[in-house]
Amino acid sequence: METIDRNGGSTLWHQIGEILAADIAAGTFAPGARLPTEPELMERFGVSRFTVRQALGHLEQRGLVRAEQGRGTFVHKGVLDYTLSKRTRFSKNLIEQGFEPGGELLVHEVVPATERVAVQLKLAACVPVIHRRGVMTADGVPVELGDTYYPAERFPDFDKVRLQYPTITAALASYGISDYERLSTEIEARMPTAEEARLLRQPKSAPLLVTRKVDVDTDGVPIAYAESIWPAERITFNVELR
Amino acid sequence: METIDRNGGSTLWHQIGEILAADIAAGTFAPGARLPTEPELMERFGVSRFTVRQALGHLEQRGLVRAEQGRGTFVHKGVLDYTLSKRTRFSKNLIEQGFEPGGELLVHEVVPATERVAVQLKLAACVPVIHRRGVMTADGVPVELGDTYYPAERFPDFDKVRLQYPTITAALASYGISDYERLSTEIEARMPTAEEARLLRQPKSAPLLVTRKVDVDTDGVPIAYAESIWPAERITFNVELR
Repeated sequence: METIDRNGGSTLWHQIGEILAADIAAGTFAPGARLPTEPELMERFGVSRFTVRQALGHLEQRGLVRAEQGRGTFVHKGVLDYTLSKRTRFSKNLIEQGFEPGGELLVHEVVPATERVAVQLKLAACVPVIHRRGVMTADGVPVELGDTYYPAERFPDFDKVRLQYPTITAALASYGISDYERLSTEIEARMPTAEEARLLRQPKSAPLLVTRKVDVDTDGVPIAYAESIWPAERITFNVELR
Repeated sequence: METIDRNGGSTLWHQIGEILAADIAAGTFAPGARLPTEPELMERFGVSRFTVRQALGHLEQRGLVRAEQGRGTFVHKGVLDYTLSKRTRFSKNLIEQGFEPGGELLVHEVVPATERVAVQLKLAACVPVIHRRGVMTADGVPVELGDTYYPAERFPDFDKVRLQYPTITAALASYGISDYERLSTEIEARMPTAEEARLLRQPKSAPLLVTRKVDVDTDGVPIAYAESIWPAERITFNVELR
């Protein structure tokens, strides 16, 4: 049985979580591998099933593992190699890397464009824009929290239309946008707010990558402006430069 | 006179430094503006010249201001908009933004290529490579700490030759490399080590942008592989995508 400090300042589940996180970082448990079962971990650390579950829950919160109903707990596949090019497509990028893309819409609203958004979309200030905030996931783990703005006049009923299509690209096509590409991309890094860390299920002490981008249609007219944050521990941007 | 806490846990110069840093962040002192003189700051805070100098030294260490002999202390011009394209050139990028490029060489050595470096330069492992570590500056403020590797056979006496030319591009041209461009670029973010924070004169609590790149000659042969870190508070990458 592994020695853990039962009188220290740190709770048992936290110590066990840290030991398992170190094992994952060291490659003892490889990306994609199944962790030992709950009974195995109970025996290894000499603790209750409840404590083991707390430790595993902690690892899942940090995005290091993923519990699959009835199958066990799996080590996250690791850093996502995300290609940035003029023709960046989220779902395609993930599928090519063997990750399952997903997402959750947090906000859909029509609001007057702020000056910053209006400048990027080449609209007059206060013109109505659709604002959508969403968390995008890879194998269920958050990899992007994005605020995207679309000109409202061009995309009527976008909230309902979007639901009918599997990807943004397909939804845009239904409005006659046969293709679109990147006009501009900026990349920065900063620390998260508490709320951002919570939504991305990452530590407050780990940095974010920040992107700001404008997509244009084949006539060069802006169709979307997005500001996104990405948990830096989970992402490498592979940049295809012009 | 401004109230500062003379009995608190924080030193006077540290408190004054934080107040001035907040003024800079709030735009009270704009990028490029001259800070109040030492006598003015002595009067504002009711402290000695020595304390004011410690506070200003602290701001300079953090890269927020720059002391110019006989002229005063100036607010740093702010975030550097650094263009990343296939034809990225450090000096040109800075000059176009109104910054004076500079640099300091910390390490020059010829070493056997590690596996990682050999793969990037398309050499056999253990083939000799030139390793150069340097800090690059904008108006004297560190903006990049880079480790660059060149195939040693192709660039004999590179340390001496480099000194004869103002830029890397000019030094490479003297070896017959008329042009070069980016083959690959990766971007990540992470926290600095204590040593990295010291070399970049930035807080340990602020993140870094990380880049890894390969440059190739006009025949597509790798001539340089570099791993660099950039203080995220001072840099926006403006990415020109293909």
